[in-house]
Amino acid sequence: MLNFTYCTPTRMIFGQGVISQLPDQLSKYGHKVLLAYGGGSIKRSGLYDKVKELLAGFEVHELADIAPNPKYDPSVLDGVKICKTEGIEVILAVGGGSVLDCSKAIAASAKYDGDPWDLITGKVKAQAALPIIDVMTLAATGSEYDAACVISRTATNDKIGYIDPLLYPRVSFLDPTYTESVNPKHTAAGVADAINHCMEQFFVSPHNSVADGYGETLMKTLMLWGPVALAKPDDYEARAEIMLAAAFACNGITNLGAGQSGWPMHGIEHALSAFYDITHGEGLAIITPRWMKFILCDRTVERFVEYGTQVLGISSELSAYEIANRAIAMTYDFFRDTMHMPMTLREVGIDGSRLDEIAKHIADNEGLDNPNNFYPLTEADIRQILQDCL
Amino acid sequence: MLNFTYCTPTRMIFGQGVISQLPDQLSKYGHKVLLAYGGGSIKRSGLYDKVKELLAGFEVHELADIAPNPKYDPSVLDGVKICKTEGIEVILAVGGGSVLDCSKAIAASAKYDGDPWDLITGKVKAQAALPIIDVMTLAATGSEYDAACVISRTATNDKIGYIDPLLYPRVSFLDPTYTESVNPKHTAAGVADAINHCMEQFFVSPHNSVADGYGETLMKTLMLWGPVALAKPDDYEARAEIMLAAAFACNGITNLGAGQSGWPMHGIEHALSAFYDITHGEGLAIITPRWMKFILCDRTVERFVEYGTQVLGISSELSAYEIANRAIAMTYDFFRDTMHMPMTLREVGIDGSRLDEIAKHIADNEGLDNPNNFYPLTEADIRQILQDCL
Repeated sequence: MLNFTYCTPTRMIFGQGVISQLPDQLSKYGHKVLLAYGGGSIKRSGLYDKVKELLAGFEVHELADIAPNPKYDPSVLDGVKICKTEGIEVILAVGGGSVLDCSKAIAASAKYDGDPWDLITGKVKAQAALPIIDVMTLAATGSEYDAACVISRTATNDKIGYIDPLLYPRVSFLDPTYTESVNPKHTAAGVADAINHCMEQFFVSPHNSVADGYGETLMKTLMLWGPVALAKPDDYEARAEIMLAAAFACNGITNLGAGQSGWPMHGIEHALSAFYDITHGEGLAIITPRWMKFILCDRTVERFVEYGTQVLGISSELSAYEIANRAIAMTYDFFRDTMHMPMTLREVGIDGSRLDEIAKHIADNEGLDNPNNFYPLTEADIRQILQDCL
Repeated sequence: MLNFTYCTPTRMIFGQGVISQLPDQLSKYGHKVLLAYGGGSIKRSGLYDKVKELLAGFEVHELADIAPNPKYDPSVLDGVKICKTEGIEVILAVGGGSVLDCSKAIAASAKYDGDPWDLITGKVKAQAALPIIDVMTLAATGSEYDAACVISRTATNDKIGYIDPLLYPRVSFLDPTYTESVNPKHTAAGVADAINHCMEQFFVSPHNSVADGYGETLMKTLMLWGPVALAKPDDYEARAEIMLAAAFACNGITNLGAGQSGWPMHGIEHALSAFYDITHGEGLAIITPRWMKFILCDRTVERFVEYGTQVLGISSELSAYEIANRAIAMTYDFFRDTMHMPMTLREVGIDGSRLDEIAKHIADNEGLDNPNNFYPLTEADIRQILQDCL
């Protein structure tokens, strides 16, 4: 087992109706609030009105229209401007991972006098950040329980992951009923995203019983309850299981003391989203079985056997490669047939015309060839995986 | 799934040699340190000298000789006196769960002007506590990652669990090499304690996929690696797996959104330890299969099936009661034959002479008949379970 430090200080307040505790929690951090949200869904669902009602005693400034794959310009820059001008004390993010990610970038940038891009790219280390509280409406990214955000800068086709312990939300309100109105496409994409977070931390070496078991638990939970949520969108248990699993899928608990993968599937997907603005979870579902097939070899097959037997229930009496190949096929079929997801790049509007450029961008920016990664990928490898995804 | 709030703010610094970070972590909280420890084992192992060397820049006061089943009088009272007299700013607990539990009671009591027993019994709610940092030398209680302590008061045969979020350690240093010198008896007792923590949170209703999977992961890990540590005490991987699993077994992560058991086996064992000062983990191992057998019925059998198939690998093709009975027998055999533990009260020096008195004490003090518990126990039930343990 490798040495590690683990601490997730976020308070998770989980369940139906817990938002009633919002004013108490918020008031610990201040009374000047930036309320950040996305499109109109929280207005249609009534959540916006509910939140405003709870914020009656606070001074509220709003940042609306935060888009999926949240943008540095205008969303982050606009939010920083409001925070600095109005003396915001705490950020309240209401929405999905994109709203929260954008809020995290704002939180650090609001306490920094220079160019926020320096923080996001890691050129400068943040010294402080505004406290963040979130109310989640989508189970997917796990941003509600981690210290990371992913920000896109359209001008340069950059989609960059920014990680700093300052970015942990202080409190995450997770009410599964808010996710019952999420449509099938985004329900499936969220489940795929969370499953992929587990996989990125599972295909590693060394590994151990605790981390493996945690990751397997979350993958099994998501694969069991994802289809239930698709079939019956207002099934509370299904939404609750998915929401709880998604929160834990990205905070490092499934990788304690284990090796690093370098997050290759996310590295590839971030570039696809940056170039084409596709739905993150859909991109990941497309990439997953192709990446699996590409890295399957004598050195990696043991991980596929563990995944196949423990998560998918494949008989351990088969040969290692039979288990591995069956596991890859079952993963593909799960996304395509059970979760009804697009499983080729062409289905999400990406043809082969820019794959060379995208592969080069990934190879230049994502560090996927790091020799400490479980299976380092060269530019040619990335190009091949993209080709296989077409 | 039930509503819940979850937050474990403790920083877990895990692995070989991590103690080198002790001065940095400690200095965040102060320079006047109460160094709390138990018998001579940390002196024999050299850990005491190592810690003193690292504390060169601090003002150190010592509280030694903290006993297993830590005592209110003298240990807690002595510690409080030192803290108040010397103006202690931070407590450093070096040892096992008993040392840390004692330190927790001291931490809260040092900030309270009244009788510390009022805090421990819950008569008064603490308003503050000294910060605690620990260096663990035993994997067992999970105190390093929870907000609880258990304190014994010999004069009244009380052994009381005291829980308050103020008691979370700020930092827990978990170096598995420090547990390599733990003898077979206490290695086994520690593993049994940690397994039992999972069971107390597993035999509940309702339950869910995430909490079940976490608990099953930890039980499987402990049952897999416990025997390895007995056979080869300096096996680092075994000690690391046990240490990591024990830390997570008691912090509530295996019970998220699930029902409550009322911790019946701990309730019974605490009285046995209070009356006879036996080793906690040994008492639990003795009680576990007898309690299981006692509560097995149509309403509970599903939990035994889940435990038997998922943790012990019993075929799901057997009938529910076949699985349950086999699971109970395998649990008994695991403790007796694999972990070489005493499995009757008589073997640990307890005869039947005081069982009536003990059963009454438990029934009067532990709340095991709470109707919200998974399987409420009357005084007669408790008496029967104790009888079955003889």
